[in-house]
Amino acid sequence: MSALDAGDTVALSVDEVFALSRRILTGAGLSLPHAEAVARVITAGERDECASHGLFRLPGCVQTIQSGKMSLDAEPVITDVSPALVRADAKLAYSLLAFERAAPLLARKAKTVGVAALAINNCFHFSALWPEIEHLTDMGVAALAMTPSHAWVAPAGGHKGLLGTNPIAFGWPRPGPHPYVFDFATSAIARGDMALHDIADKPIPDGWGIDADGRPTNSARAALDGAMLTFGGHKGSALSTMIELMAGPLIGDLTSRESMAFDDGSRAAPMHGELILAFDPAIMGGGDVEAQAARAEALFAGFSAQGARLPSERRYAARARSLAHGVRTPQVLYDRILALGA
Amino acid sequence: MSALDAGDTVALSVDEVFALSRRILTGAGLSLPHAEAVARVITAGERDECASHGLFRLPGCVQTIQSGKMSLDAEPVITDVSPALVRADAKLAYSLLAFERAAPLLARKAKTVGVAALAINNCFHFSALWPEIEHLTDMGVAALAMTPSHAWVAPAGGHKGLLGTNPIAFGWPRPGPHPYVFDFATSAIARGDMALHDIADKPIPDGWGIDADGRPTNSARAALDGAMLTFGGHKGSALSTMIELMAGPLIGDLTSRESMAFDDGSRAAPMHGELILAFDPAIMGGGDVEAQAARAEALFAGFSAQGARLPSERRYAARARSLAHGVRTPQVLYDRILALGA
Repeated sequence: MSALDAGDTVALSVDEVFALSRRILTGAGLSLPHAEAVARVITAGERDECASHGLFRLPGCVQTIQSGKMSLDAEPVITDVSPALVRADAKLAYSLLAFERAAPLLARKAKTVGVAALAINNCFHFSALWPEIEHLTDMGVAALAMTPSHAWVAPAGGHKGLLGTNPIAFGWPRPGPHPYVFDFATSAIARGDMALHDIADKPIPDGWGIDADGRPTNSARAALDGAMLTFGGHKGSALSTMIELMAGPLIGDLTSRESMAFDDGSRAAPMHGELILAFDPAIMGGGDVEAQAARAEALFAGFSAQGARLPSERRYAARARSLAHGVRTPQVLYDRILALGA
Repeated sequence: MSALDAGDTVALSVDEVFALSRRILTGAGLSLPHAEAVARVITAGERDECASHGLFRLPGCVQTIQSGKMSLDAEPVITDVSPALVRADAKLAYSLLAFERAAPLLARKAKTVGVAALAINNCFHFSALWPEIEHLTDMGVAALAMTPSHAWVAPAGGHKGLLGTNPIAFGWPRPGPHPYVFDFATSAIARGDMALHDIADKPIPDGWGIDADGRPTNSARAALDGAMLTFGGHKGSALSTMIELMAGPLIGDLTSRESMAFDDGSRAAPMHGELILAFDPAIMGGGDVEAQAARAEALFAGFSAQGARLPSERRYAARARSLAHGVRTPQVLYDRILALGA
């Protein structure tokens, strides 16, 4: 984020972030339903002070839109495959509208049979998974989401990009306004953070990447040209491989390497699939939902009791601030975004 | 393993390992169906040269059996809850018989609706998850299993045991004899390996544990008295928390802390639940299973092409050796096991 933190800022309300995002996206050619779905997620990112998933994403969106590979207006096709499976064919558009359209059916299925899956196919990936997870926890179900990306990450014991940064996110509905949610890349660091280190010419820590010859490097540029590494050594590598398989071949969609081949250097967002699982505590747990919730709350209380933070606490605090006082966006980014709409 | 590797060994065929295990377990009081289910997993561990999950486990089994907390003969009660959910109540016996009895129905459900879950409740956990995963991949489904344990592991940012070692295992069926399988503890190291370091008075690496005052330690003893750490920092901690929630409150069963309280110092195996998800590639992928399999095989080929190993390759090589030539078990362990049956 350091490249964006310095200098003057512009004050915007959360509603203004949404309106600006929608205007730029429709101006670039996205249909209104797609533009609003993407703008909702950009607004959530900016609101929660996840700068790299907020307005910062707009230039990349416009680049993806202009790549000519993405559909700007495809209506997602939702198929009710079975009592436990929904398929959403995004028809080469962004994933978010497909997700929003299919999510109620996914939650309904989970609430009927206990566990259900949503397979989104042929979608251009957009940004973080936690907004989708929160969308589902708001419906009262627990949720697990994963997606491949591009083959930038070497497997443990290897030296070349094969796996994606492959994010995984999970949520558990809680009493009160905020669910338990985590969302992390299975690479040691997000691709965007690696890029920001490169832009700022800042050395990267050990364990983030290797150069084109497979040697450990502290240069973000060398790692971007070589390969990123997974978090947690062979365990992170195994988890990333699971995500390739589950959100790729399992749902009849591309691996990160195939997605990269599809992109063919256009530098658009990755195009592939996404898998989202939803679980209903009432059916999965046999009925005593109050006891289940109390048990989960006791676990969370065990974190606070020893001073450990839950994964999204920082984000929720930022949300409260932004909803009350608006957000501050770097002037340089704001100007760049306005220029996109010129 | 170092404490077990030294000295004389006894040669046993794989069938002899099974017969010995069954004899010791029935001798200790387990009913024949339970003894055979446990003996199958011990035999698989010994055969695959996972020494800490093979015959080495028998003394601990006998201790659990003699703890008086475990049912030695309960018939698991299998409930067909919904098109996507099977429940197996182990009735305070070992989990394995419940798993074996419920697995065919789980696979059948997955093959009918795409994704299905098996919730095993009220079970004493036994050993590794990969034998269960292989049992399911042999039926042609992909599978994901997880379970809590005892609250030995501190969350990221904390300093006291709250999470379990919480293993997670995944399998993908492949053409040929061996599936893709991984199985790892979300603690930095397995509890058993920590114990073996203590027995051998060997220092532990940085990142495995903290002492009772929350300070980093290289003493296995101090970490066993303090807390273990998760693998992969806050990401491993988040994943471990997901396992607590999904294989605990979600399925109406205990967290690792509750399991530890239930144990109340008897040093029996953890008693809690287990969650296993099964996925049918044909239904989840929309039908072109050959293309899906080819896509997965291309991913695996990408590992070999850069000299990276797949997670279970060492185990499969050991299996081939053991099936051809039998296993070699340390004399000291063998004598200790014979004494259990005296």
